[in-house]
Amino acid sequence: MKKFLNDPVDFVDEMLEGIYRAHPQVTYAAGDKRCLVTANVKPGKVGIATGGGSGHLPLFLGYVGDGMLDGAAVGGVFQSPSAEQMYQVTKHIDQGAGVLYIYGNYSGDIINFDMAAELADLDGIQVKQVVGNDDVASSVVGEEHKRRGVAGIFFVYKAAGAAAAEGLSLDEVARIADKARLRTRTMGVALSSCVVPEIGHATFSIGEDEMEIGMGIHGEPGISRTKLAPADAVVDEMMARIFAEQDYKAGDSVAVLVNGLGGTPLEELYILFRRVGQLLDERSVTVKHVWIGEFATSMEMAGASISVTHLDEELDRLIGKPAGTPFFQHVPA
Amino acid sequence: MKKFLNDPVDFVDEMLEGIYRAHPQVTYAAGDKRCLVTANVKPGKVGIATGGGSGHLPLFLGYVGDGMLDGAAVGGVFQSPSAEQMYQVTKHIDQGAGVLYIYGNYSGDIINFDMAAELADLDGIQVKQVVGNDDVASSVVGEEHKRRGVAGIFFVYKAAGAAAAEGLSLDEVARIADKARLRTRTMGVALSSCVVPEIGHATFSIGEDEMEIGMGIHGEPGISRTKLAPADAVVDEMMARIFAEQDYKAGDSVAVLVNGLGGTPLEELYILFRRVGQLLDERSVTVKHVWIGEFATSMEMAGASISVTHLDEELDRLIGKPAGTPFFQHVPA
Repeated sequence: MKKFLNDPVDFVDEMLEGIYRAHPQVTYAAGDKRCLVTANVKPGKVGIATGGGSGHLPLFLGYVGDGMLDGAAVGGVFQSPSAEQMYQVTKHIDQGAGVLYIYGNYSGDIINFDMAAELADLDGIQVKQVVGNDDVASSVVGEEHKRRGVAGIFFVYKAAGAAAAEGLSLDEVARIADKARLRTRTMGVALSSCVVPEIGHATFSIGEDEMEIGMGIHGEPGISRTKLAPADAVVDEMMARIFAEQDYKAGDSVAVLVNGLGGTPLEELYILFRRVGQLLDERSVTVKHVWIGEFATSMEMAGASISVTHLDEELDRLIGKPAGTPFFQHVPA
Repeated sequence: MKKFLNDPVDFVDEMLEGIYRAHPQVTYAAGDKRCLVTANVKPGKVGIATGGGSGHLPLFLGYVGDGMLDGAAVGGVFQSPSAEQMYQVTKHIDQGAGVLYIYGNYSGDIINFDMAAELADLDGIQVKQVVGNDDVASSVVGEEHKRRGVAGIFFVYKAAGAAAAEGLSLDEVARIADKARLRTRTMGVALSSCVVPEIGHATFSIGEDEMEIGMGIHGEPGISRTKLAPADAVVDEMMARIFAEQDYKAGDSVAVLVNGLGGTPLEELYILFRRVGQLLDERSVTVKHVWIGEFATSMEMAGASISVTHLDEELDRLIGKPAGTPFFQHVPA
């Protein structure tokens, strides 16, 4: 295992120590470093909390900051944080306007966030939930509730975070988050495995010349394993599945995220985006917002995902708003 | 070779097509996509140009933008751009106040930038040069002119870019860049090789349990190859060499960059920074600025580098100024 770490058991907590040392904009609630919250709670604002396993930086905790989220419960690598941690984050960030949970569709996270919402309810804190399920590959159309949440949750955070920053109500912020969720689709492709520190070896094996389309960010099986194709052919296959999900008309606009899974050079992500742009041009669909880089990773996995949000006017405006976290800055032109 | 690419020959140009599609803040001079320049040339300002091989994103071209650089000549993967390309960038960005070249200490780049400066001189454009040589591992003390430029050039760009944005003269911007250069040191460690697209196999081999301290960002040999040690021990060795180079006193302050070489998860960089911060605490040295992430990569190489700039008041102030490029945003708190 080729990793910079000390005892693998301390991986997450030592990472968090580094984060708190580097970034005074975030702190933690209830004396538990895994209850990460903004140091800059905004009075009266709807709070937004997320949470999930570690190993996906900048997801999840990296989006806590101005114009995005207020707190994140931090689990072990690829493990759900506890209900208690989610509840402590909730209590800390609630300003009387309620709290929205936005997280990915994984059973452990759902159970624990549900329990945290019940605990918060006993305290009179109103909680709503939006569960990201953007991964096209994890089920057929009609069974979207089975789909995993992957990188597309970034756009849900961005839209909902901007709405909350504008002072909208919990119902409104939840409505906007849910719309962003419903209009966002992601397809991923993996080229190599990741290594979970406490396990110490590759999560799965994949041939030196193979790719797996649709693999999940914890190594969940995808929909096809084939010889690695040229970049343009890979993008064509990924985008065909994304286009098939929504009715794109000439003149429509989108937000695009080309996300590296951890071990893929940034150069290659731009080669992928080049083809994404060509395909959107062919349909006369306009790219209004684009981010390219590592936004939701799987440790050192080589691979990439493409997320597309089918914009309406409201999402276009909100996704274009400024944001500033220790891991992500958006300064509109 | 597990890469997202089409024909390896087109790697750099297709990457650039993706960049120009994504980022209207940059464009190119003289009809040559490899002459990347800001779309927002500031009248009267000293121009700052850089250049070097591809494969190091966001280095070099990623630092072209407000508060940093004005242009970058883009070479093939790990290859110097041509003197003609550097000259065209120079002509485009010159506003009558002269142009500063800031680039790394590699013989091809030096020859070509020297030639470009001569061509510019024939046009009456005044050019000065500062050549980054922050890599402690590439020579002993006393032979600093043999040292390679690596990630620490980021701090030279940041200080000089802020100085130019303030309207300082070419002499002043060059003086500040040179001071940042002289006060910056970097140590790197590699855990795995990179793969150059047109070559298609690993540049070097390294054992499954080995690390190489001091390896260059093109795979140049380092100073020791040993068993991979715990993260804290790796940092202790790197920082000991950095501390040995400058006279750090209690009360001094520094800027720190913990840089991933491409294939190392962000989580691990924070584990490294945790230890860097502890060592600085022991010496009562204050971290005034810190960046952690991928700033100068070597394709998919696993590994990291630590750069430290020993600040004085002027560098502290300038490095803290805002900057905004397609690849890097700095919004001071």
